Amino acid sequence: MPSNIVELGKQAQRAAYQLGQLETAQKNSILKSMAQALNEKSAEILDANQKDLENTEKLATNFVDRLTLTKERIKAIAEGLNQVAQLPDPIGNVDKAWVNAAGLSIAKRRVPLGVIGIIYEARPNVTVDAAALCFKSSNAVILRGGKEALHSNLKLAEILRAVLKDNGLDANAIQIIEDTSHETAARFMELTGYLDVLIPRGSARLIKAVVNKAKVPVIETGAGNCHVYVDADSDKKMAADIVVNAKCQRPAVCNAMEKLLLHKDVADEYLPYIAEKLKPYHVELRGDKKAQQILGAAIKPATEEDWYTEYNDYILAIKIVDSVDDAIEHINKYNTKHSETIVTNNYQRSEQFLDRIDAAAVYVNASTRFTDGFEYGFGAEIGISTQKLHARGPMGLEELTTTKYVVRGQGQIRK
Amino acid sequence: MPSNIVELGKQAQRAAYQLGQLETAQKNSILKSMAQALNEKSAEILDANQKDLENTEKLATNFVDRLTLTKERIKAIAEGLNQVAQLPDPIGNVDKAWVNAAGLSIAKRRVPLGVIGIIYEARPNVTVDAAALCFKSSNAVILRGGKEALHSNLKLAEILRAVLKDNGLDANAIQIIEDTSHETAARFMELTGYLDVLIPRGSARLIKAVVNKAKVPVIETGAGNCHVYVDADSDKKMAADIVVNAKCQRPAVCNAMEKLLLHKDVADEYLPYIAEKLKPYHVELRGDKKAQQILGAAIKPATEEDWYTEYNDYILAIKIVDSVDDAIEHINKYNTKHSETIVTNNYQRSEQFLDRIDAAAVYVNASTRFTDGFEYGFGAEIGISTQKLHARGPMGLEELTTTKYVVRGQGQIRK
Repeated sequence: MPSNIVELGKQAQRAAYQLGQLETAQKNSILKSMAQALNEKSAEILDANQKDLENTEKLATNFVDRLTLTKERIKAIAEGLNQVAQLPDPIGNVDKAWVNAAGLSIAKRRVPLGVIGIIYEARPNVTVDAAALCFKSSNAVILRGGKEALHSNLKLAEILRAVLKDNGLDANAIQIIEDTSHETAARFMELTGYLDVLIPRGSARLIKAVVNKAKVPVIETGAGNCHVYVDADSDKKMAADIVVNAKCQRPAVCNAMEKLLLHKDVADEYLPYIAEKLKPYHVELRGDKKAQQILGAAIKPATEEDWYTEYNDYILAIKIVDSVDDAIEHINKYNTKHSETIVTNNYQRSEQFLDRIDAAAVYVNASTRFTDGFEYGFGAEIGISTQKLHARGPMGLEELTTTKYVVRGQGQIRK
Repeated sequence: MPSNIVELGKQAQRAAYQLGQLETAQKNSILKSMAQALNEKSAEILDANQKDLENTEKLATNFVDRLTLTKERIKAIAEGLNQVAQLPDPIGNVDKAWVNAAGLSIAKRRVPLGVIGIIYEARPNVTVDAAALCFKSSNAVILRGGKEALHSNLKLAEILRAVLKDNGLDANAIQIIEDTSHETAARFMELTGYLDVLIPRGSARLIKAVVNKAKVPVIETGAGNCHVYVDADSDKKMAADIVVNAKCQRPAVCNAMEKLLLHKDVADEYLPYIAEKLKPYHVELRGDKKAQQILGAAIKPATEEDWYTEYNDYILAIKIVDSVDDAIEHINKYNTKHSETIVTNNYQRSEQFLDRIDAAAVYVNASTRFTDGFEYGFGAEIGISTQKLHARGPMGLEELTTTKYVVRGQGQIRK
């Protein structure tokens, strides 16, 4: 693959045109062949991964863990390809169709976006996962992964590209940027006219950098300062179960809860109960004055900055509020518009919360952790959009498509 | 209204929150009151417009014409408000709803974008038109019109804002940028965190400038290098009717045809016939060598640049092609992805054209001029998107909305 980024863009566009003409059965068969190839060549993949794993002494344990491949992990990655093969293909679906006043038959048809760029960190599984979702939705993809995973990524792409070639297709449907310098990344983010969309996947810092620097259209993903508001009229056990699940089941992810808002009428009773349930997880509690009065030494003071912070850790900030209005106002001020929950038995307040909270997903009596492409039943997820244009919330295959109007006439001209 | 652009953004956000809670009937009633107010105050509007019309001696006639208001034109603008009142309200509509594996009831609900920025030229009617569509879709709007129309725009906005105020609403749902300097326009385009989307309306030059400079999300509209391909198996009269309509009915607009591709087997017969039909419109013809051989002195040579150019004028470039494949290849190379037509009686070639052309709208046997929100039956149009993200083709009220997932549970937590 050439190091010239514009050349990669041109190659991707040519491949994208071919992908747009593929039939679903052909795409599915190729995805299954890719899965098989990954399993067959797992020894080669592990060799490449081993090269990446040398010189990682200075890196954090969880970083190295995400970078590490095993035979079992390769098997799981390959199984992911088989699952993508089984998903419904959005391409060609018609969202709406009607006949206009002039008698034209108009259909709004789903078509590929074209060329998708993905910028991600040192997780080799993202290479295969993103390539599979782009391929299934008939998009060419240009992947720019973290430099620490380069050997693994190149080997994985080599295997996928060989399958494309064996099937008579343009291997440039899947390309890796080999030059992992910041200069090349910057040029990638400015590849106007070639990249139809750029999707960053990874840490908040990576996403923010891409959003700030990119000149091509970006879909912002990931940041989640998620709240659970527990209403006065609510079930104490349900509230605690949801808080523990939303906070502790997987605290590092974007749909984990970061803030607990508690109605003042139940704070004295609920807060010690919830704190007790959180104890086994060693959650650090921070709170406003009222929460401190209730929990005493078991809670630290929260600063103004806390209300803005996505901890991605076993930390929870707690605020006692006077009403659902206060809760809504606080959430709309501090949230990242990701996922917000109310725990209540009151009909009016549940509706107020659902109507007035500005977020990709709003919940009554459920954990924020459900904001996820798999949990929503999309069978896949390329990320969770926290922006309002094009896609909002979990993005599956359909979010990797656009539409075109297909119009059939009998000689109509405009009056 | 303050001249500080960030302050305008803050005010718009506050107003947007209120707009999100309005009921449809209330919005419609206010739109009708706005229409009435414009008619009642037409003398004041004409006075303000007169100020704009002073010192326009150096401006082109058609520019001054677009800037000029008359009592009749004000009546038509007011009637537009009544029409927007009659359109269906997209807010609250549910695109899809289902129950997931965990038993959560998930609905994808249409909600406002929030704050919309519009940058446009010296057409006072756009002020009212854009304000009405944003208000009906519960979005706050910040309008930045051409400096030549400032007096008219301020007076129109004053009248609309007074109606909002009389109805107990925040007048800042509709704001005008009074400072029409380039510096302020630049700061407007960088109003990240306040503007949810910026839509430029006007000339290709204006749109290009906004797309290049903006840091907020932009919806690109308007550029249309549209083609009509006439197949070997086609109806000669239908082909000529479509060409004349697409080229001459309103040549200055983006969905007008700019290029004619003609199959070689019918070129000798069709081209003189079509040229004859174009004669009454004094269309300047430019063509490739084969077209020149057929028409002789009646056609000028076309340059490479011609194939890229959107004339927006009585000029047509003509190319003779060998096949539908050649036509598709040429169009996908040179088009602006707006609107493309094939004239054919052949089923296979019609399907190939519809499938393989990359454009917002593709037609069989119809004029490209139909790409329009009103013609498509949307009842309104804020512009025609030529980009692939969020909206593609004519944008009506629904394209001014986003979605949120509204999820109702009974205490579900994630396993």
